[in-house]
Amino acid sequence: MLVYGRNVALEVLKKPKNVKNVILQQGFDDKRILSLIENSKIPVRTVSKKEIDHLADGVHQGIILYIRDYQYYNLGRFLESNASFVVALDHIEDPHNFGAIIRTCEAAGVDAIIIPKDRQVPVNATVMKTSVGTLDNVKVIQVSNLATTLDTLKDNGFWVVGTALEDSVDYRDIDYSGKIVLVIGNEGFGISNIVRKKCDFVAKIPMYGTTNSLNASVASGIMIYEVVRNRK
Amino acid sequence: MLVYGRNVALEVLKKPKNVKNVILQQGFDDKRILSLIENSKIPVRTVSKKEIDHLADGVHQGIILYIRDYQYYNLGRFLESNASFVVALDHIEDPHNFGAIIRTCEAAGVDAIIIPKDRQVPVNATVMKTSVGTLDNVKVIQVSNLATTLDTLKDNGFWVVGTALEDSVDYRDIDYSGKIVLVIGNEGFGISNIVRKKCDFVAKIPMYGTTNSLNASVASGIMIYEVVRNRK
Repeated sequence: MLVYGRNVALEVLKKPKNVKNVILQQGFDDKRILSLIENSKIPVRTVSKKEIDHLADGVHQGIILYIRDYQYYNLGRFLESNASFVVALDHIEDPHNFGAIIRTCEAAGVDAIIIPKDRQVPVNATVMKTSVGTLDNVKVIQVSNLATTLDTLKDNGFWVVGTALEDSVDYRDIDYSGKIVLVIGNEGFGISNIVRKKCDFVAKIPMYGTTNSLNASVASGIMIYEVVRNRK
Repeated sequence: MLVYGRNVALEVLKKPKNVKNVILQQGFDDKRILSLIENSKIPVRTVSKKEIDHLADGVHQGIILYIRDYQYYNLGRFLESNASFVVALDHIEDPHNFGAIIRTCEAAGVDAIIIPKDRQVPVNATVMKTSVGTLDNVKVIQVSNLATTLDTLKDNGFWVVGTALEDSVDYRDIDYSGKIVLVIGNEGFGISNIVRKKCDFVAKIPMYGTTNSLNASVASGIMIYEVVRNRK
């Protein structure tokens, strides 16, 4: 996986074992980054501006890093842990939303994030960038089938809380004190019917405008901190 | 101001008086959009793919619309209204964050959003796009000096609530029942010193991870809904 830019470089070079190699533009002179690269003994190649422009498809600021693909956490191993708060994403498509949700989960102390394999943005370079260094402290688990995974979690004592505008109760009126899986729906379509059927509670955030929609990462933040309020 | 793409077109064509003219690519065949344009009698020009690619700097899907610049609301006129909940942005730089904040404010029934003229993203095409049609229902007021505007609001009975991690109290322990201005800080630097001095309360959202940072629009969502909880 390829990432670029100076802020991202500073972030990923904190864990140099994740960096396979680095491409620098001729004349790159950020001393802080150069010293991190030197200390970590990561292989470096220096190329012309033309060549680095060709390799990156965005603003690279003279540096590209090839990093190891994200290693998803194992569901079985996770279930052996003492976890009690999980966030499941029901097909989030926008990497900026996914990155912001990872950041919120890390801040709120969520134990793991579960994502489906299909029709869901995976942990890619944009997600890594928008999660600004929090990804190392959150377990992301990728599963083939979100609905059956929710069944597994229910068998392990979790309550499933979804969010939807219809046939739902005020999000402040739910008891979140047990083991909770909070399901966040797709940006356009919300949670799918098959996932909704697995929900023990369906919550709604009251809205007073005419549009009835919040950004997915904003709605996640409000819901996640509501669960936190009931627990800590 | 220039916007493009089919979803945006459908949204802005709901208020055709804001659209000055439309550029279509030869062969554009979205019947729903074409019928809206025809009914509203907006001037249309059809051009080649090459020409429309040249005019747009992103994915245009065959349609570009020239729309009227956003008309900011007047502070003096606003203060004559019966408003009691204002959000002030202390130099938000990312248009996606600003768009998501507008969307949250509309949903939560915030009376107005105040932004400074300098070092703050204005209401531009990206903000309009990411606020997904909610901008028409929220008053955005642009001011030269945010700190003196906060003084004016205080003279009008508002309490100023800022957010910061240091020297602050848990956001759940503040009484938001009066007239409230909630100040949201810059993505990187938080609220500025001069604005902080105007705050009657400084709130913090508790964080349990190692990174201590939430996306600005997520933090705004949590704070805005905390004010709503105390009022409605």
